[in-house]
Amino acid sequence: MAFLLSSTPSLMTEVVVRPMNGGNGLHSYSKNSTFQRKAIEAAKELINKAIAEKLDIKIFSSSNSFKIADLGCSVGTNTLLAVQNVIDAVERKFQSQGKSTQHPEFQVFFNDQASNDFNQLFTSIPPNIPYFAAGVPGSFHRRLFPNNSLHFVHSSCAAQWLSRVPEDVLDKSSPAWNKGRVHYSNSTPQVMKAFEDQFAEDMDNFMKLRAQEIVVGGLMALILPGRLNETPHTEAYLNKAFEQVESSLIDMAKKGIIREEKIDSFNIPIYFASLQEVESAVKRNGCFSIEIMENIPHEKPQPKVMSSTLRAGLEGTIKEHFGDEILDELFDTLVCNKLEESSLITESCKSVGLFVVLKRKPNE
Amino acid sequence: MAFLLSSTPSLMTEVVVRPMNGGNGLHSYSKNSTFQRKAIEAAKELINKAIAEKLDIKIFSSSNSFKIADLGCSVGTNTLLAVQNVIDAVERKFQSQGKSTQHPEFQVFFNDQASNDFNQLFTSIPPNIPYFAAGVPGSFHRRLFPNNSLHFVHSSCAAQWLSRVPEDVLDKSSPAWNKGRVHYSNSTPQVMKAFEDQFAEDMDNFMKLRAQEIVVGGLMALILPGRLNETPHTEAYLNKAFEQVESSLIDMAKKGIIREEKIDSFNIPIYFASLQEVESAVKRNGCFSIEIMENIPHEKPQPKVMSSTLRAGLEGTIKEHFGDEILDELFDTLVCNKLEESSLITESCKSVGLFVVLKRKPNE
Repeated sequence: MAFLLSSTPSLMTEVVVRPMNGGNGLHSYSKNSTFQRKAIEAAKELINKAIAEKLDIKIFSSSNSFKIADLGCSVGTNTLLAVQNVIDAVERKFQSQGKSTQHPEFQVFFNDQASNDFNQLFTSIPPNIPYFAAGVPGSFHRRLFPNNSLHFVHSSCAAQWLSRVPEDVLDKSSPAWNKGRVHYSNSTPQVMKAFEDQFAEDMDNFMKLRAQEIVVGGLMALILPGRLNETPHTEAYLNKAFEQVESSLIDMAKKGIIREEKIDSFNIPIYFASLQEVESAVKRNGCFSIEIMENIPHEKPQPKVMSSTLRAGLEGTIKEHFGDEILDELFDTLVCNKLEESSLITESCKSVGLFVVLKRKPNE
Repeated sequence: MAFLLSSTPSLMTEVVVRPMNGGNGLHSYSKNSTFQRKAIEAAKELINKAIAEKLDIKIFSSSNSFKIADLGCSVGTNTLLAVQNVIDAVERKFQSQGKSTQHPEFQVFFNDQASNDFNQLFTSIPPNIPYFAAGVPGSFHRRLFPNNSLHFVHSSCAAQWLSRVPEDVLDKSSPAWNKGRVHYSNSTPQVMKAFEDQFAEDMDNFMKLRAQEIVVGGLMALILPGRLNETPHTEAYLNKAFEQVESSLIDMAKKGIIREEKIDSFNIPIYFASLQEVESAVKRNGCFSIEIMENIPHEKPQPKVMSSTLRAGLEGTIKEHFGDEILDELFDTLVCNKLEESSLITESCKSVGLFVVLKRKPNE
């Protein structure tokens, strides 16, 4: 799960990186990722089904081990659960094909930003795991693995993070300048378009990179929070939640706690897409077939839990820009209260996850 | 570079792990590993030669990338230098064979204990490195990689660390009990034998594991501090240096700063072997041919530098057993002074490194 902010256009230039909160303290991602775990649990049966029905185990007969990558793994137990689920499903597939004696070896690559707390992740890996574990530092908006080296890619609650804030929304001379706001969903059509375009560009790049890394026949399961097709951005629950963060920051600016210019020069590099948008990216890319594509229900957490979840994810980015002295008031008081106050509105909003399983097609 | 202490005999049981000092502060390994870097520099030409003359680049024609592992990498720039050197040599080999258009992809696995400071390592990897980097947490006394998955293994200043303190030297009822001492070189023949045997057992296990992981034709370069063949342990410079740590701890016990029983229940799990001992292990294993085997000169650092080097490596282990309040006095005063006082004696002692390049033979 990656935060990437950059004022420069190229993915090859340096980016400011803010991963999830490390460690296992009060505000850590590790202690505040129930929301993300529920997404993994909801996806579990679908991943089992994908592996049972769509994986051809011959794809790794010529190599020595079945290689799995979890992109944007963060530090918690979620990544370990997700990976174990994939391994269990692959082993069942082997057994179902009467190859129970031929146990494959598994190598698992846990990927996240170099500034992710890998120390926390590595020391939380239990002994006697049935795979060889490795950590891969770097943004999944870049190449991370050799050509044709992965058999299964998993990425949960990560690909909604953009590679950068769209340039135009920070540009005073642009019609897409997002003045006075830090999120897109309540903003002008131009701002929304800039975020939509950035997501499309990032997905095109993501698909291109993964098509190089995944072997022909290999699978990729993408789980990301999003919205229903045709649903306006303002009616998606997660956008409503982010609007409370925005509104809280605006309140703080009005009270003089933070400077208004600081709001103008900041946007959260996140976008909640629909399945249609993901499908379009897959089709533009052309290297993958869509094997499973559906919405999975997302629970709407209680306001207190949701504000902690938002804090664990956004704290690094907010602190970098606004300083860490505002964090407690922002999340524990303002955002939490606003989530409570807006609960009648958010009740009618849909909270959904996008679940897609893709298979790498043979090269034409 | 791994610290492993265990009172249990099996390698499969939990071990207490103390890696090198992390971070980049005053006492960090990263700031106190000049000694180890000089070993890598001395080995550089020999590794170039091994790759130029002994590596058959056909070994990775069927796979997609050239896979390198650095075992016991720690956190500093040493591992990055060592790995870059291997890559440069492999690329030159390709060019010399007129295959300059066929640039291989490289994947590099940085290995050390799970408690190593991988965060420090990952954030120190420069951008635009010509390889895909991964961190592999775990002791090299266990399996770390899938079968036949590595083309070049590098390990510098690491394999002298034993998987555990030999059981007998902590056993009051054993003739090999190392009472009143924490190191073996000035001790009884029984204690020396226990350490010798532990090193032989660990090397047998190390060779067995690496033979599984390295492809046929793959190379392994081992660099470790040691002693000349036929040289008594007491005449090896590094043993003399460790004896100063031992003697300092004994002084502290005499002064009542630490309890005498604490000395009896502690031994440093390290052993300085000769090339003969490494050669014997390779021959017992039978899976590798010896391509290069020689002693490389090791500089003897100034007392102050040497005590810092010892501290960066031993601090974790000593702190765990004796508490951290003794560290400054132990290393910065006592060990440093004793190294100065003993400089006339150590002047006559040899400081050498062992350098061995092995090639994985075809299975019979």
